[in-house]
Amino acid sequence: MRIPDILPLNQTGELAQALAASIDHKTKPLGALGQLEKLALQIGLVQQSCTPGLQRPVMLVFAADHGIAETGVSPFPQAVTQQMVLNFLAGGAAINVFARQAGMQLRVVDAGVNHVFEPCPALIDAKVAMGTANFLHSPAMTAAQCATAVQRGMALASAEIEAGTNILAFGEMGIANTSSAAALMSVLCELPVHQCAGRGTGLDDVGLQHKISIIEQALAHHALPRDDVKQVLATLGGFEIAMMAGAMLASAERRALIIVDGFIASSALLVAARLQPAVLDYCVFAHCSGEAGHRLLLSQLGTRPLLDLGLRLGEGTGAALAYPLVQAAVNFLNEMASFASAQVSGPA
Amino acid sequence: MRIPDILPLNQTGELAQALAASIDHKTKPLGALGQLEKLALQIGLVQQSCTPGLQRPVMLVFAADHGIAETGVSPFPQAVTQQMVLNFLAGGAAINVFARQAGMQLRVVDAGVNHVFEPCPALIDAKVAMGTANFLHSPAMTAAQCATAVQRGMALASAEIEAGTNILAFGEMGIANTSSAAALMSVLCELPVHQCAGRGTGLDDVGLQHKISIIEQALAHHALPRDDVKQVLATLGGFEIAMMAGAMLASAERRALIIVDGFIASSALLVAARLQPAVLDYCVFAHCSGEAGHRLLLSQLGTRPLLDLGLRLGEGTGAALAYPLVQAAVNFLNEMASFASAQVSGPA
Repeated sequence: MRIPDILPLNQTGELAQALAASIDHKTKPLGALGQLEKLALQIGLVQQSCTPGLQRPVMLVFAADHGIAETGVSPFPQAVTQQMVLNFLAGGAAINVFARQAGMQLRVVDAGVNHVFEPCPALIDAKVAMGTANFLHSPAMTAAQCATAVQRGMALASAEIEAGTNILAFGEMGIANTSSAAALMSVLCELPVHQCAGRGTGLDDVGLQHKISIIEQALAHHALPRDDVKQVLATLGGFEIAMMAGAMLASAERRALIIVDGFIASSALLVAARLQPAVLDYCVFAHCSGEAGHRLLLSQLGTRPLLDLGLRLGEGTGAALAYPLVQAAVNFLNEMASFASAQVSGPA
Repeated sequence: MRIPDILPLNQTGELAQALAASIDHKTKPLGALGQLEKLALQIGLVQQSCTPGLQRPVMLVFAADHGIAETGVSPFPQAVTQQMVLNFLAGGAAINVFARQAGMQLRVVDAGVNHVFEPCPALIDAKVAMGTANFLHSPAMTAAQCATAVQRGMALASAEIEAGTNILAFGEMGIANTSSAAALMSVLCELPVHQCAGRGTGLDDVGLQHKISIIEQALAHHALPRDDVKQVLATLGGFEIAMMAGAMLASAERRALIIVDGFIASSALLVAARLQPAVLDYCVFAHCSGEAGHRLLLSQLGTRPLLDLGLRLGEGTGAALAYPLVQAAVNFLNEMASFASAQVSGPA
């Protein structure tokens, strides 16, 4: 598995200073646009420009099934993964609505759903297998499957960037994938499972305890070395998570901005960042989800998200909802007058 | 001053139940769209419809000057109010950029700026006076001026609603108006001034202490009865604040949705809500600003805002930035498939 080279952003160089000066001279009190100012600076650095722009925004939604679902860690049956893929293709899911509103192109990727779909131009077939193995007993993927998933994610993101995209968001669908994400977080952050696992699509207290117990048993069984990130990913990850991690790495390598969605997407980024920490410089964090564990995961990643609306739907919905804020950061940088150009007085 | 009748929303009636059922049957886990679900319910109740829509969104920005500015409570000179009005008219301010992005029609209102503007079709002349009196020594407005400002705000909002608007946001510009807002909050919420006053456009520690001291002196001088809301508003308010309060009351009376911006707009709403509490049912709270006092004021109003980005610019910028989230609430309600229509299985 090739891990791309990613250049860290130079936060203190000439461009950073020029961007900061441009932001500070806009007709507003210093710092008055809060997080949008940090975002404008970041986007300028990512694009190496004082007048950045957002082009051909794309939302890639990766769907896959999880062997761990057979242990009853989700209240929904596994068939919902394939049903929701069909819902995406029919345009009726939340991510369809929000991507349409945001003007983002939506692509649905079969990363490894336990169903053979009819050929369909709107569905990208990147299927690695008919779902992962149950990681309670054996690794979810073979090393080869994991490498394939990461590579396909890299290739899909790269193809969008080749076509002119400079901002990508990644969503997911996969019954039981919060268990995979929580397991990855627990190992890679060295945190107890109960701090990582949440109610997912709506577990009650008993269901949550069962889920925690299943993940704890799995982690005890595998006894993973946390420094071998590829092995951790192969053992616990889903195909959609591995594909997202690859897509994130390729996006950052090619200096595209990444909008990170919720808990699952953040677990994919955690994997990507342990492989190549500079990927974090290219990420905008859309929101803190209502899924327990996400707030802690965001703090482990050292970041502060744009939204905090109690969303816990996945699919990339939080990223699509945050997109207008990213646009606003670019727009104020490009379109606002300066004190000088508007002949407005500064502080006395 | 006529205070409009405003009907409280029926949160438990048949329509509320029908809206809740529609939201719950969408293809997503129960509650997974968090605050957007509450928002969709509220908008349905405001519009008395299970398929609400947003029409002809308008942003009214009220500008006025404040006599208290002469006591040095702002680091910026008073002339910045008029300069920023010209910046609004030229399209170079933050609110121009964000209203344009949101697709909101922007109107600039001279509520009482200390400058005679050239006639300009884009500027609504609703000037009550050339700024308020310095409320350190005397009431900011006469009772008649205050009533005029409130009435003009009501008339301006009503005219937009007559023209087809069903969602309005209100912004403001006025050097020293955080002092007016903090004074109103202190009296109407019975809170000490130091919990209400913040750094505004960027006061340092000494400047903030001076501002607090000035407001404390003013409040000691006037010894206002907090139950006489009209007298409190006339004594401490700005023309833009009184006009916003009137515009909010008229919007709610006509069942239009109100997007509440930051600290100053919230102080106007505080006034409006003390005159007619049901106005709160029609409000969407855009953001918690970085201005000290706003978080406390929002909790006094019993609400949770959509955004928390450290914005402290005013002009209605937070409201314009939150507008896409309001659109998203309406859009998911109207456009998402249900479990039944998409043939997606529910929880086991």
